[in-house]
Amino acid sequence: MDVSMTQSYVDAVTSRDLRICAQLITRVEAADPEVRPVLHALYALGGHSRVIGITGPPGAGKSTLVNQLITHYRQQNLRVAILAVDPSSPYSGGAVLGDRLRMGVHDVDPGVFIRSMATRGVLGGLSRAVGDALTILDAMRWDVVIVETVGVGQNETDIVRHTGCIVLLQTALGGDAVQSSKAGILEIGDIFVVNKSDVSGSDRMVGALNEMIARRAGHGDPQCWQPVVLKTEAISGQGVSELCTEIERRFSFLSQHPEVAMARRLDQLRRRALEIAKERISVALEEHSQELLKSGQLTADVRERRTDPYELSETMIRMLGAGRSH
Amino acid sequence: MDVSMTQSYVDAVTSRDLRICAQLITRVEAADPEVRPVLHALYALGGHSRVIGITGPPGAGKSTLVNQLITHYRQQNLRVAILAVDPSSPYSGGAVLGDRLRMGVHDVDPGVFIRSMATRGVLGGLSRAVGDALTILDAMRWDVVIVETVGVGQNETDIVRHTGCIVLLQTALGGDAVQSSKAGILEIGDIFVVNKSDVSGSDRMVGALNEMIARRAGHGDPQCWQPVVLKTEAISGQGVSELCTEIERRFSFLSQHPEVAMARRLDQLRRRALEIAKERISVALEEHSQELLKSGQLTADVRERRTDPYELSETMIRMLGAGRSH
Repeated sequence: MDVSMTQSYVDAVTSRDLRICAQLITRVEAADPEVRPVLHALYALGGHSRVIGITGPPGAGKSTLVNQLITHYRQQNLRVAILAVDPSSPYSGGAVLGDRLRMGVHDVDPGVFIRSMATRGVLGGLSRAVGDALTILDAMRWDVVIVETVGVGQNETDIVRHTGCIVLLQTALGGDAVQSSKAGILEIGDIFVVNKSDVSGSDRMVGALNEMIARRAGHGDPQCWQPVVLKTEAISGQGVSELCTEIERRFSFLSQHPEVAMARRLDQLRRRALEIAKERISVALEEHSQELLKSGQLTADVRERRTDPYELSETMIRMLGAGRSH
Repeated sequence: MDVSMTQSYVDAVTSRDLRICAQLITRVEAADPEVRPVLHALYALGGHSRVIGITGPPGAGKSTLVNQLITHYRQQNLRVAILAVDPSSPYSGGAVLGDRLRMGVHDVDPGVFIRSMATRGVLGGLSRAVGDALTILDAMRWDVVIVETVGVGQNETDIVRHTGCIVLLQTALGGDAVQSSKAGILEIGDIFVVNKSDVSGSDRMVGALNEMIARRAGHGDPQCWQPVVLKTEAISGQGVSELCTEIERRFSFLSQHPEVAMARRLDQLRRRALEIAKERISVALEEHSQELLKSGQLTADVRERRTDPYELSETMIRMLGAGRSH
């Protein structure tokens, strides 16, 4: 992509051409290397949106809660973008959530942009693609960007780490607290929400989460963010304004503690770069390994069992270095 | 580890010191770099065992079938090692499988070696660890080595690829055929077994598998292995001798088609080396990324948003090259 083409894409994004932005996100999903100069230029323009990550197991009520947040922010006249990394998300299909709530309500509002991302078949890693999509949305200067991911696995943990405020949504239905704990997301959550709080066991879950928070490093230190546990009923909207207040408090904290905000940004950049580097190396190694397979020398070595997997891995790594120096 | 120490480990393995071998497998699970010279020496001594991989979803009856295979091979006076990569495997816990069958039966037989492998917390990849464990077992010159893995995901596919004969066990309970298909294991199975063949739908599953086989590349070509679909009832032993005959036919085919056997060995070596190389690079990149984080220059660049993730990934890859040349 040449410089003028790159610039025209950048102009389209900053003037919020939704069609072009949607196109760019599609190219990002396909790991199209052509858009890299665009991403580079857009990255320099970003850093203004409040990026919120919402994750939790299926059925926790994430979409309903996101819908409530959209309504809340629109009432404050803030512009909101949603990135739904969730195959069951009702945003894309327009599924009916209930009598009073349909995601479609926000579809005709130009202050709301909803984009779902494929969770399967994304080339070069889903977390990398979400990072790139956030670069685009951030450069569009949405006041609020919400990333919704389903599940509580490593992938979801990686994805919500791209945000400034990680909201972990759970319910007392079916021992989710223990499951989440395995994926390490309890260690990185900024706000904990027990949704469907009328379910029995909710108070016990709130207690368990508070205990876990009390064991985290930095607990009680005013220089560290102190997470809270909230109860909501996303369908009725109960507890949602308290959640919005907490999200507000989180972003105020980051403004007042620039060293914390900077450490987080550095870590986010490092993680994104690391993922990209690993993916690039992985592709190169795969190619080198195929080349080696074609070499007659290797066949002889294998027949005589002279080459073991560790030796061959060193050969591949050497080829990597040689390939780069040309 | 020095040369004499390496040699004493090698001697212990070739003289089948079970305690030392179990120790080595534990060190392999911990990705201990100290054992690499031992693995190198052992690899050169291997290539004699018939290595069979058995995989399938939980509840398909893998352990019961493996038990039958052990009995069968012991009747032929063949020595058998089992590597169980299955957290629910009854081998380790000694769970009762039924009135007539207990894995414990084989425990006191010196012609049988049973080792379960942790599926969680294995450093540097489970498939790599299984490959290394197979290097050890192969050098011990067991006549038959059986790798049992639970599940039908990418991990299991990677693991059974280390073997010369991939047996995919399924049942007509709950649409497993479709699930397996996603993980690509249907494309690499050498023998397909529909177990619990009295379950309704078994014949339909046999039919579906035969159709799938007919669509595989090389179908009907005498130079290519032609997989079959068998029905078994592992608990009663029905169909087990037919399965053993098929396994026999598979290894005869490999002897009679050395070019096929060599291509498979090359591909196995390539995959193992690739996994090791990726893991090593990944660790190095992680270290470089942490070093970068500490550099003051990066903080300034991030504040000004001069460095984007793609640029930083290139810096990390350059550090990789520089790190290696010293």
